[in-house]
Order: sequence, then structure tokens, then C-alpha cells
Amino acid sequence: MATIRVAIAGATGSAGEELLRLLLKHPHVQLTYLAASAKWDRPTSVSEVYPRFARQVDLPVESLDPARLSHVCDVAFLALPHGVSMALVPDLLASGRRVIDLAGDFRLQTPEAYPRWYKFQHANPALLQSGQAVYGLTEFHQEQIRSARLVANPGCYATSILLGVLPLLKSQIIDDGRFIVDAKSGLSGAGRKADSSLLFTEMTENLRAYQVNDHQHMPEVAQEIQRVTGQSAMMTFVPQVLPVSRGLVSTIYVRTRASAEQIEAAYQTAYPLSQAPFVRVRGQSLPQLRDVVQTNYCDIGYVPTLAMESLVVMSALDNLAKGAAGQAVQNFNLMCGFPETTGLL
Amino acid sequence: MATIRVAIAGATGSAGEELLRLLLKHPHVQLTYLAASAKWDRPTSVSEVYPRFARQVDLPVESLDPARLSHVCDVAFLALPHGVSMALVPDLLASGRRVIDLAGDFRLQTPEAYPRWYKFQHANPALLQSGQAVYGLTEFHQEQIRSARLVANPGCYATSILLGVLPLLKSQIIDDGRFIVDAKSGLSGAGRKADSSLLFTEMTENLRAYQVNDHQHMPEVAQEIQRVTGQSAMMTFVPQVLPVSRGLVSTIYVRTRASAEQIEAAYQTAYPLSQAPFVRVRGQSLPQLRDVVQTNYCDIGYVPTLAMESLVVMSALDNLAKGAAGQAVQNFNLMCGFPETTGLL
Amino acid sequence: MATIRVAIAGATGSAGEELLRLLLKHPHVQLTYLAASAKWDRPTSVSEVYPRFARQVDLPVESLDPARLSHVCDVAFLALPHGVSMALVPDLLASGRRVIDLAGDFRLQTPEAYPRWYKFQHANPALLQSGQAVYGLTEFHQEQIRSARLVANPGCYATSILLGVLPLLKSQIIDDGRFIVDAKSGLSGAGRKADSSLLFTEMTENLRAYQVNDHQHMPEVAQEIQRVTGQSAMMTFVPQVLPVSRGLVSTIYVRTRASAEQIEAAYQTAYPLSQAPFVRVRGQSLPQLRDVVQTNYCDIGYVPTLAMESLVVMSALDNLAKGAAGQAVQNFNLMCGFPETTGLL
Amino acid sequence: MATIRVAIAGATGSAGEELLRLLLKHPHVQLTYLAASAKWDRPTSVSEVYPRFARQVDLPVESLDPARLSHVCDVAFLALPHGVSMALVPDLLASGRRVIDLAGDFRLQTPEAYPRWYKFQHANPALLQSGQAVYGLTEFHQEQIRSARLVANPGCYATSILLGVLPLLKSQIIDDGRFIVDAKSGLSGAGRKADSSLLFTEMTENLRAYQVNDHQHMPEVAQEIQRVTGQSAMMTFVPQVLPVSRGLVSTIYVRTRASAEQIEAAYQTAYPLSQAPFVRVRGQSLPQLRDVVQTNYCDIGYVPTLAMESLVVMSALDNLAKGAAGQAVQNFNLMCGFPETTGLL
Repeated sequence: MATIRVAIAGATGSAGEELLRLLLKHPHVQLTYLAASAKWDRPTSVSEVYPRFARQVDLPVESLDPARLSHVCDVAFLALPHGVSMALVPDLLASGRRVIDLAGDFRLQTPEAYPRWYKFQHANPALLQSGQAVYGLTEFHQEQIRSARLVANPGCYATSILLGVLPLLKSQIIDDGRFIVDAKSGLSGAGRKADSSLLFTEMTENLRAYQVNDHQHMPEVAQEIQRVTGQSAMMTFVPQVLPVSRGLVSTIYVRTRASAEQIEAAYQTAYPLSQAPFVRVRGQSLPQLRDVVQTNYCDIGYVPTLAMESLVVMSALDNLAKGAAGQAVQNFNLMCGFPETTGLL
Repeated sequence: MATIRVAIAGATGSAGEELLRLLLKHPHVQLTYLAASAKWDRPTSVSEVYPRFARQVDLPVESLDPARLSHVCDVAFLALPHGVSMALVPDLLASGRRVIDLAGDFRLQTPEAYPRWYKFQHANPALLQSGQAVYGLTEFHQEQIRSARLVANPGCYATSILLGVLPLLKSQIIDDGRFIVDAKSGLSGAGRKADSSLLFTEMTENLRAYQVNDHQHMPEVAQEIQRVTGQSAMMTFVPQVLPVSRGLVSTIYVRTRASAEQIEAAYQTAYPLSQAPFVRVRGQSLPQLRDVVQTNYCDIGYVPTLAMESLVVMSALDNLAKGAAGQAVQNFNLMCGFPETTGLL
Repeated sequence: MATIRVAIAGATGSAGEELLRLLLKHPHVQLTYLAASAKWDRPTSVSEVYPRFARQVDLPVESLDPARLSHVCDVAFLALPHGVSMALVPDLLASGRRVIDLAGDFRLQTPEAYPRWYKFQHANPALLQSGQAVYGLTEFHQEQIRSARLVANPGCYATSILLGVLPLLKSQIIDDGRFIVDAKSGLSGAGRKADSSLLFTEMTENLRAYQVNDHQHMPEVAQEIQRVTGQSAMMTFVPQVLPVSRGLVSTIYVRTRASAEQIEAAYQTAYPLSQAPFVRVRGQSLPQLRDVVQTNYCDIGYVPTLAMESLVVMSALDNLAKGAAGQAVQNFNLMCGFPETTGLL
Repeated sequence: MATIRVAIAGATGSAGEELLRLLLKHPHVQLTYLAASAKWDRPTSVSEVYPRFARQVDLPVESLDPARLSHVCDVAFLALPHGVSMALVPDLLASGRRVIDLAGDFRLQTPEAYPRWYKFQHANPALLQSGQAVYGLTEFHQEQIRSARLVANPGCYATSILLGVLPLLKSQIIDDGRFIVDAKSGLSGAGRKADSSLLFTEMTENLRAYQVNDHQHMPEVAQEIQRVTGQSAMMTFVPQVLPVSRGLVSTIYVRTRASAEQIEAAYQTAYPLSQAPFVRVRGQSLPQLRDVVQTNYCDIGYVPTLAMESLVVMSALDNLAKGAAGQAVQNFNLMCGFPETTGLL
């Protein structure tokens, strides 16, 4: 089968490192270019940056050169800080490259949402509104992703939440369209920036909520619910960081009178094994974080309590895998015609 | 001021160790007896069991002898596994001792609740129903605690939840009486038992929910809400363990149309500084776990989102301190006529 | 290439779980039997024991049946507690199976060493003394391992120490044959037994030394040094557990007048890239634990300080990978004629 | 007893925070000034910086004003980055203040050592050489500290090492004067600076050595050994950071033919209970890190192995307490005529 030439822009961030780890194992990938997002003095061997990769790859990490990026790859993975890729993508598309963007730059379809949620004006509102960017929540858009030239890879929280609630909304299990998400994430979700609130000494033996009802993954969740179900939903969202490195679990609360059988049917309909190899519906057994860490699975379990009209869903994934780099590779597989699970099991 | 002779039964468990730590610093306490709950071969010096206490106390830890317990102390702290203290308390009371029980044996007033929630038949239903046991949620029962001979010290989750929701319920801020608690606890809450699910290797980089809507702190929460507000409430409760040693936070979700001012007023009314030295109402600033660990404070913050009729409250405490041994000492201070904060700042 | 039928005895322990993880990815392995070391009530699906393996393997875990073990596999991996495999191996060999034993039962060649170091009498002294068991320190015994029917897989500490000191001893770099090892291990090295000293609450924010100069890996280190170099060496050994799950680093101290060039030469001679794909000599850059975790590499770095005639070597590996299951698979590859790195990169 | 007016310069660093915690509990201290080392926009309440101190202190944290510092206190604790206090101390002394400096600025007596070890030229070589600065290793300089006007508080590693080896050197137990220190420290030792190598995601499940035989605590160890024993010693030093917040253990290796009795005698002579309330000699029981964390104790245990002429000593303390702020308060107590343990038990 064909070998695809692949570049990673942002290879030194936490999602970039995970992409590197996954793509090195991919049987049909030839890595051709590793670019750092930060200012970079000189080409540096990967093993100098990440000694764990010694003997596994001998490409240098270089300062990002957009012109070069447009020439050396068939597919570019962009794992750059929010607001950087929007300026790079038009040239990449124009030169015939396909792009998987892990930042938020192409997730929202309304340019005016960017100043509110991402604190920047979007540089390419026309491209955004053209609908060319396919939202890469794999399980719900497989056909579109196969032919996409630009995939906006979903946020980690958004992936976890949407995989948990879309089946319920589609099956009319949430009467009033309201749900609450109490999400807990490992710290790799915050990337590798030197921020004193992310120090070991600040976070060991700690838990911290942040951006309550004010997190940039909220509009992509709302937009995707509208797109998939035609409904508008109302989400209360409390993201929290935990003293773990990887892993994310969204505990989702809804009010419902649905029975356990109806709930199970909703999930089984949404995720038949043949169509959703990476979503494991676990019935009334709730996933632990460690069940999914270092895998591309999203595990979903639920506990209905009929007497209280209460339903608790836990949707767990590895924020760097299914929540970022793993889902990006899953989308890459679809775009290139490989089996969806290639390199991910 | 008088010195009180104090015994700790269950001194080798995690709550017992914390009691020991606190009582050693208490200016009016003379420790007279340290008894282990487990079978114990021979008296062992505390510093052999816990080297950190070397030079600070030279009492031996001995096998629990109920007759001796009844003779050597004025006040007995019982930090034993659930179901042990119910057999010890009658003799202690009969011999004139005062008792602070950290287990669940005297928290519920209905004997028939015990088989359901604690898996044992209560040995002293008459005592239970007599109302002699005062529920030791300090901030709400100060007067009764002052004259109590038997205090049932609240559970750690229950303390955190009740301090968070009682002011809202009293002020009619939760219209429908429903609330959701997504609680996260450090592992010391599970005690020191050798259970493979509590191993470091199982819990590092993990998070696990357990006993969803089926935890033994639920009935004491319901009973206390009924007692304090006259209302019956409906709680969805998801307890979860975190990879931290100490600390517990309850994230509480309610639906309300109350304003931030009304919410603040509810808390300020419930916890005036002069009456509630250990509850810190922090307004719209949410507490981190580390703000309360190793202290006897319960910190409460909240975020109302009017557009969504949504209110998020976080109520954080140290499960071994305000959630167990610290609140027990707070109650002890009231029972003995000491200032409530003695030995706890 | 041929597919090898493989059984794992002890599949529910930490080394067994890692074997399962590695062998599932091995292109030439067909897993045929998963046996638990503990008493096991009924066959249980792997995913019930370890939900992370759901969808990846559908074999049941069963109670260990030695007769069945002898019939269903070509190669048996034994990851049982010390003292169990010595009774199983003779029948396995007699029935033509090849065996890789991860316990200590066949590491020492002198039966009388067992009561001293392992607290049991060896059940098969003749087999032990026959020399049939090949010590599976792959880099030093590749030829013998290729034709071995029984491989005694080295201990995790022993692997780390020997890979660090054998090149120095062979090159006469340690004048007096004395060396000190200050070793730090993750807690998975202690397995999955429910021991209160291994609880999260005991080990988080802790470090503990144990079995100083009294650890059962000491005699296999001495025996192997004698075998490979003809020298007797004198090791001071302080093993310590760290609050990490996986990973082991031996910090080795020797007195030497050798130069950095001589030291580098010693290591390069011992580990040419073509012969030692899993030993990465890193010169004067000391490895961090995270450089090797989740890999089969042993990373070695050193710092000589000539003015003090002092040499510090750090030898780091993942105790479950190169220190146990990974090295076992490396040996399996040699035994079966596969490239040494198959399934391990 | 008199109340002492105390200022903390550097109150927002990790040692400064610990000083604040300890001094708030000290019965004879009145805190008068809290100054931050960093540029500080406006006076900020302590509880805004550290919510855990809410209700316990209401002083603001202010930008450091040297003139003000010289007027508002009797004793100044300086917990500033290395190289800052050397410019402040002369004025403080001239205005009659007494100073306890937790940085390295006055630890070494030879100005020319500063460029080598601290990367700066010392601003006050005359003061340095005058011998006015008393090295605050409490147990060895109690008399001098009582009358000191300037105490150079020892480094955390230096305290741990010196308390472990000085008794051995004084008793001629280390024949050749050589010793090896394999030290492991919690990350609070690195302070609170936003450095990406100190992020939670970099350090969880990790261990890292740094500055091997090149750490700035080495010259103060050598100088103190010379001062106390008249000997010159040769130390191999490997400092390592662990994934813990607090605590430091030095594992010390020496070659000796001394017996256990001689070793015990050396320590008992050095640390009689009446003279060294914070050094706990534990005989052949090795301390765990958790035995000393959150205390001012240094715990020392040792394992001699006569057949190998090997002695292993472990010296454990809390790097923020006995290794920094706790020892500073211990010195403060001596300087002010309070019992050495005041506020520290």
C-alpha cells in the first residue's frame, strides 16, 4: 500500500510528541518534516529534545518554515497553539496538501465566535464559512472525513462530551436538552508551557476547577449538537485539572425517565462495533481513567436511577490519544483509505 | 483551665492517626489510652507504629480493652470500623464518659436503615431512637453539642455536602429540592486497609467512581436536610477517588434563578464569622483542594450562570480534618467549654 | 513466518499483564492459554479483569492447570510468585515445551542459595545444577538463549545493575571490584499484592529503602559477574521504592582512574548497535526515568570526575519491560528465530 | 515574654510561604512586614496570594522596600533568590536589625568561591571574610548563633549531609575521608519558578539527576567539615529530584571497619537528646521520607555491613522545614533566647 509523506508542525508540544509516537508506528507513514512551533535556534535531533525517541527516528526538529511545509508532505498535521494554523492552511490547501489541524482554528463555523472564545480575530473567515473544514469527530462524520482536504480535529473535552451525549440526544433521552458535565482532565491537556500553576509542586495532591461555563470547547459542542441532532442543548460545564498526566473523564448528568434498556439501545445504535471500533460501550460499568490511558478508546458507562429520574454517564478517554493525536491519526486513516484502526491498536 | 483525660480507640487507622496528631497539640488534653482496633499482639510504642511521632508521645498502643477504656478517660474518641462502637458506647455512657464516635453507628436515627446502608443490624436500636446521639455537624448544632454525652461525628462526604447545600435549601434557593453532587476524595478516606484497589500502582494516574447513588453517607445527608430545613431533598451522588492522599471536594449542581447576591446572602447568613470560624465563604472564587488540606477549614465558592439557571458550588475540606478528626476535636472543644478553635489553628 | 502458540501462567500479576500487552502486539504469537496464579473461581474474560484489554483479546483467564499448560502451547511464559515454577518446569520440558520463567526459581545455580535468599528449599536441585537454565540477560548470552529450552529471566534490579557494571568490569575499569548501587524502583516491581505498605496513601510523597544488602537479586548479580568476567565483585546494594508506578534506575558508584574515553570504549565494545538494539549508551548525559518507561530500552549514562577518581553511572529501564516482560519477549524472539526487536519497538 | 517584630522578605516563594506558616504559629512573633521578591504591582492580601492563609493573617504582601525593611522589624528573615540579600544585609545590620538569610549569600567565607558556585561576584567580600556571618547548622553552633547578628542558614542538601557525616568524621569512622551522597529531593527545593522541567507532566512518574558533582551546596559542606573537624573530605554528590513535593533524603555511603556500637556512639555523642531536640537517631532503622515531612526533625538511621566494610546512612528531613524555614526559626529561637523548639513542635 502507498506510503504517505507526513509532516508534523508543532512536534515539540505534548500533542505533537504524541503524534510523533503514533506515526512512528504507522506502517504507511514516512515522516518527512518535524517543525517546532517555538522559535528554534538550529535543527536539533529529536532524541536531543526527547531522549525517549533515540534510535527510533533521526529527523531533526526545525524552526517552522511554511514554504517548506507546503512542499515536503502529502498530509500535514498541525499541532500548533490556537491562532497559528489559520494563517498556514490556505497555502497548504492551495499547494494540494491535506491538513489535519489539532488547534481550534477551524472548529467553529462562525468567525465572530473567535474573539469571544479564542481571543483573536479569525484571519480567514471566508474559508471558515465555506464549510471546507470537516469537524473530525470520527464516529459521526466518517464519510465526509474520507474526502476532506481539511479536518478540524475536535478538542479533548468536546470529544469526550459529544461521544457521551449525542446518542442520548438523538434518541430523545434527554427530555429538556439540559445536561451537566463535570469533567476532569490530566495536565497534559494544558500543554507544555512553563506556567507556575502547572508546576508539580502546585498540582500534586491538588484539584482545580477553571473556566467554569467559560471554556472554548463549549461552542464546538453546541455547534456539533445542532449539526447532528438539529437540537439546541444547554450545557453546564465545569472543567477541572487533576494530578495525573494523561486521561480525561466527563461525568455527565441528565434528567430522564428512560430505562436502562433504552439507554443501552441508544448507545448500541450510535456505536455498532463494525462502525465504531474505538468506542467501547460498557453498560452499567463505569470506566476508570486507567482503562483508556495510552489507548485510542473512548469508554462509556452509565448508571440510571429511575426513582430519581437520574442518569449518570461517564465518558473516558486519553486526552492526548482519542482526545487529540489518536483521533487525528484515525481521521488520517480515513482520508488515506486505510482501515480506521491502522497504527492505533 | 482543666485538663481533660482523653482516649483514642482506633488509634492506628487514618482518622485515629489524625486525632493523635491534633490532640498532641491540644493545650488541654492529656492522652491516657491509645487502643488499636485490630488484633494487637503486645503493647507497642506509638513511634514504632508511626515513626513520625517519635519524641512527641510515649504512650503504648494496646489492644482495645473496653473495661479499661471506660476507666481511664473523661472523653473517648472512637475511630473504629463501622459496627464496632455500637457495642461499646452503652458502657462508656453508663460509666459517665463522654463519647465522640467517628463511625456511622450513631449517625442514623432509624435502626432499619443500617442493614440497607451499613450491612449490619444495629445492636442498640433503643439508644439510637432515644435521640441521645447528637449529629456533630458543628456549625448547625452548636448548642446541642455543648451538652451532648454522645456525638455522632458526620461522614466526610456528608460534611462537605451539607455545608454546601444547607444554606441554599434554608434560603429556598433550590426550587425543586434536587441537587447533584460530583464528589472527589483523596484515598485516605478509604482508611488504611490492604485492599488491592487502593494500591499506589492502581491509583496513580487514575480516577474511579464507586457506589454511585449507593453510598452510606446519603441517608445521613437526607436526614440532616430534613432535620434542619424540614424539607426532603433529592440528591444524585457520584463519589470518586482521586490520586491524592488527603482532601475532598464536592462539586454541587443546582438549578436556580437566584442572583449572586441572594446566594452570597444565604451563605453569609448561615456562616457569620463569629459563629462559624471554620467555614470560609469565598464568593465566586472556587476553592482548590490544596487550599484546605492540612487545615480544619471548609472552603465554599460558587459560580452562578443566570442565563442557564445554573449554579455550581464547590465545597472543599480535608477529609481527615474537618471531614473527620478535626471536626471531632471541634465538637470536643464545645463539649468541654473550650473555644471552638482550640488546637485547630 | 510460523506462528507460535503461547501461554502465560500468572497473567493477572503485573508482569503477566505486561506480557499480555506485549504479546498481543507480537505478529507471530497466538495466545492459547491465560492462567491466573491465584485461586480462581471460574474462567473470567480478560476484559473483566482488565477492562483496558476489552476488544483486544477474548481468551478467558482460568485457574492454572499444569496438565493443560503442557498441552496447549509451544512456549510457556511463567510469571508466577517465586517458588511456584520450579514444580511446573520439569513436566513442561518433558512434554517438549520451551519455558521462559520470570521468577527467581532457576536464576541461581546453587540449590543451597535458595533457603538463604528465597526462603524455600529448591524442589529440583538436579535441574538447577544441570546448567539447562540459561540466564536470560539477553545482551550477554544471545547464542545460548537461541538454543535454550529453559530461560531464567533476570530480575529487574539485576538487569539494570549488570548492564551498567559488566562492561566496566570486563574492561578492568573498576580497580578493586567494589561498587555501590543506589537503586530506585517504581512500585509495580512489588507486584499487585494487597500489602498496606504499598497503598497509595503510604507511598505518595514518600521514598523507602528496604532489604539493604539483603535483596534476592544480589546473588544473581554476583553469579553473573563471575560467569561473564571471572571476577568476584563486592556490591553494596540499597534498593528503594519511589512514588512512581513503573521505571527503575540504578545509580552506580565506582572508584576509578579511567578516563571518559576509556569508559565510553568499554560501553561501546559491550553494546555495539548491531548487537544490542535495546541498550542506549548515552555518554555523559544521564537518563531520566521517563526516557525509558513504556519502552524496552536500558539507557546508560555516566559522569566521571577524575579529580576525585569517581565515576557515577546511571542505568535506567522500565522494570516491567526490559526488567521483566520485555526482556522475556526479547529472549522469546531469539529462541524462535525472530529478529530480536520483533514486537518490542 | 517579649514579642519580636519580624519581617519576611521573599514571602511568596516556597521557603517564604513556609516561614509564614511557621511564624504565624510562633507565640512570641509579631509579623510586621511581608515583602515579595518579585516585582509586585500593588499590595496584595496574603489570602489572595495563598488562599490557605485566609483568616490567619491580614498583612498585605508588598514590593520589597529595603528602607522600610530596616525600620519595621527586630529580626528580618530573607528568603530571596541567591545574590539579592548580599546588597541588603549591610544596611540592616547598620540599623541594628538581626538577620537570618536563607540564601547562599553568606554561607561561604571565600568571596572567590561565588563566581564558581553561584555565578555572581560577591558584593560584600569584606563582610564575608569578617566572619560575622554564623553558619546556622544549629546543632553544631548553638553558642555562636545565640549571639549572632547575621546567620547564614544552611542549604537543604548541606543540612542533611552534614548532620549525617559530621559525627562519623569527628569519631574517625570514615578512614579515608571519602564519602558518597546519593540525595533525593522533593521539587519544592527548586522553588516556585515557572520552569518547564518542573511541570507536573514532566516530573510525575519521573526521577532526574542534575548538577552531579557540581552543586552549590558542595563548598559549604566542605567548608563546614573543615571548620568542625579540621579535616578535608572528599564527597561524590549526586542530587536527584523526585516526584514528591516536600522531603529530602541523603543516602550516604562510606567505607569503614567500625562496628554498629561505634557508629551508634558517634551519633549519640553528637546528638544528645538534651542538646539536639530535632535530630532523631534511629539506630539501624532507616527513615522513610514521610517520617519527617511537615516536621522539623532530621531522622538518621544506618546499616553497617561489616563483611563488606560498608556503611549506609540515611539522613532525612523536610527540605522546607529543617532544610530551610524550620531551621531558620530554630536559629531565631536561639538568637532571641527562646527555647529552641518554640513554635516548631
